[in-house]
Amino acid sequence: MQADWYLTQADLDAIELGANVLGTGGGGNPYTTKLYARELLKQGKSIGVVDPLNLPDDAAVVAVGGMGAPTVSIERIVRGDEFLEAVRAVERHTGRTVEALISKEIGGSNSMRPLLAAALGGLPVVDGDGMGRAFPELQMCTFFIYGLPVAPAALCDVRHNIVLFDQVLDAFWLERLARAVTIQMGCHAAYAMAPWSGAQIKRTAVRRTLTQARDIGRAILEARQRQQDPLPGLIASLRGTVLFYGKIIDVSRWITGGFARGQVIIEGLDEHRGRQLRIEFQNENLMARDGDAVVCTVPDLICILDRDTATPINTELLRYGFRVVVLGLPAPAPLVTAEALRVVGPEAFGYDVAYRPLRAPPDLLPGG
Amino acid sequence: MQADWYLTQADLDAIELGANVLGTGGGGNPYTTKLYARELLKQGKSIGVVDPLNLPDDAAVVAVGGMGAPTVSIERIVRGDEFLEAVRAVERHTGRTVEALISKEIGGSNSMRPLLAAALGGLPVVDGDGMGRAFPELQMCTFFIYGLPVAPAALCDVRHNIVLFDQVLDAFWLERLARAVTIQMGCHAAYAMAPWSGAQIKRTAVRRTLTQARDIGRAILEARQRQQDPLPGLIASLRGTVLFYGKIIDVSRWITGGFARGQVIIEGLDEHRGRQLRIEFQNENLMARDGDAVVCTVPDLICILDRDTATPINTELLRYGFRVVVLGLPAPAPLVTAEALRVVGPEAFGYDVAYRPLRAPPDLLPGG
Repeated sequence: MQADWYLTQADLDAIELGANVLGTGGGGNPYTTKLYARELLKQGKSIGVVDPLNLPDDAAVVAVGGMGAPTVSIERIVRGDEFLEAVRAVERHTGRTVEALISKEIGGSNSMRPLLAAALGGLPVVDGDGMGRAFPELQMCTFFIYGLPVAPAALCDVRHNIVLFDQVLDAFWLERLARAVTIQMGCHAAYAMAPWSGAQIKRTAVRRTLTQARDIGRAILEARQRQQDPLPGLIASLRGTVLFYGKIIDVSRWITGGFARGQVIIEGLDEHRGRQLRIEFQNENLMARDGDAVVCTVPDLICILDRDTATPINTELLRYGFRVVVLGLPAPAPLVTAEALRVVGPEAFGYDVAYRPLRAPPDLLPGG
Repeated sequence: MQADWYLTQADLDAIELGANVLGTGGGGNPYTTKLYARELLKQGKSIGVVDPLNLPDDAAVVAVGGMGAPTVSIERIVRGDEFLEAVRAVERHTGRTVEALISKEIGGSNSMRPLLAAALGGLPVVDGDGMGRAFPELQMCTFFIYGLPVAPAALCDVRHNIVLFDQVLDAFWLERLARAVTIQMGCHAAYAMAPWSGAQIKRTAVRRTLTQARDIGRAILEARQRQQDPLPGLIASLRGTVLFYGKIIDVSRWITGGFARGQVIIEGLDEHRGRQLRIEFQNENLMARDGDAVVCTVPDLICILDRDTATPINTELLRYGFRVVVLGLPAPAPLVTAEALRVVGPEAFGYDVAYRPLRAPPDLLPGG
């Protein structure tokens, strides 16, 4: 398949940073994966990108990435080829030739992992994903919310153990079975989903999020180069809002069921002095409360950035004393339908709180 | 493939009883599976048996059965068709047509489960298995000990979720990954192993154990009909020995990692009065100690039977007050080689005890 454009090394740096912002504290740090991708470009391999609307309707597209706990994937470095191995396992099992790859999750390292499989397999990646952010569980993506097939999917680990989910009731069962296997594989595994058609991708994907990640990263990097504050431009381009300025005064973490869970408490500074923001996370930031008031919940994005450099701070890197800005960004439209909220709304994470869309400042609303 | 003989309803009753003796306390109770098999015979289906030495060398043979905790499978009744579904999943994945089935484990309900797949699929079962008894973990069978392929294998649950282990490092990894999936499937799943050839089955199987199970059961049932004590005939035909007569005075059980573990303490009666036998189990009876002295260990068989009726008592049914006889039966020859003892000897179960073959009474030794 013809690519629309090709990624450069500068693109990789920008995507790393932008994907980390969209990771909302989770999704895993893309840094080591970026180093692999950069090395593959240096070796002369290329990574083509295709716009979702340019996909042939009958093209076979496979979503590829990694599942596990981000805290584990910092120390447990990938082998690099397990993503393509997972895709090849799906190809062998289905007898179909995969023509393009897509990220299921643009937030965090799953923005970058499809690029490894793309470079090694000579396959283009689609400019889009299934979340427009990061989420902790497999079923939490537009592809499954809008009914694409859940099987057969593959998991591959660093030892090249390969498990195929040949027939699975629904995406919740895929999550349950694949999670148990991932834990045995050492809390990190590469996945490849069932082949979906170009037409299905066009209908269900959150579009152009690879470009979005690159543009976010580029905006931050360019502002830094000009020694300007990157925040105002970032907030405007993302139609987001500042939820809080403050200093981290407490972090708790625990790993249960293969997830990194916990909470961070931020004491207000500047105009938020005297208040406290509490953010709870399961791999990703789920819910922000200012005192008792809920100020932002999934699926809207809660992003904790370093106050001065706008560097996103993943939940596993939160530390006492960091001075941060917390941004709220509105979720992509496909995540806030009634169907989607059943899977990615606050209730899906066990909260007795209904989703209320983030209130963006009036001048930043669409068309405002 | 032509069957050498066909199972009757009387054979099923005898196999149920004999397989329970060979289950050494575990392997799961074959009763409900027998009811399914009986119903299938009543419906006019047939279950042919083929002697392993009559298998064509190039025949594709698949081992089929169930994995999980026996205590769970008492209450969680199988659907009946999941064993054949697992076989069909392996067929679809490999593109090979399966010509015969075999039990991996003649002890307990895995003696009977291949019969369901055989009746439903019109396939013969091989007269043999991979243990000559029951063992708690997948790698503990002669097929894997003597190097047959571990992948691709399939698991199927009552919901018809199907997971394929497409590429697996070794049988220990298959056990580890399949166990995690089985636990998610509700602690019980049907498995089908990779297709093995007739030649491979001839080289590695414990032979004619379906016939052995039937003959054990038949001997007990016939002695009961004649109102005779079944024990002397049983012991002689199995070249076994009485380890202990006594009364159960204590039972402990716990389920960890998907296994039923525990121990039973038996207070001596008759010639064993004043002594105590302690038997530890992991699904199956593993180790019998008379005071501090080890009197029998895996892979030799430790069978607890009702003193009067010779009915085997599974570990999950052990109760205070039962009057029992404990038999020790020598393991089949393929289980006591150096290669086999590394996988099924006492050290493999975490005991710091070397295997010493059971001492059978001199007049019962081969040729004695």
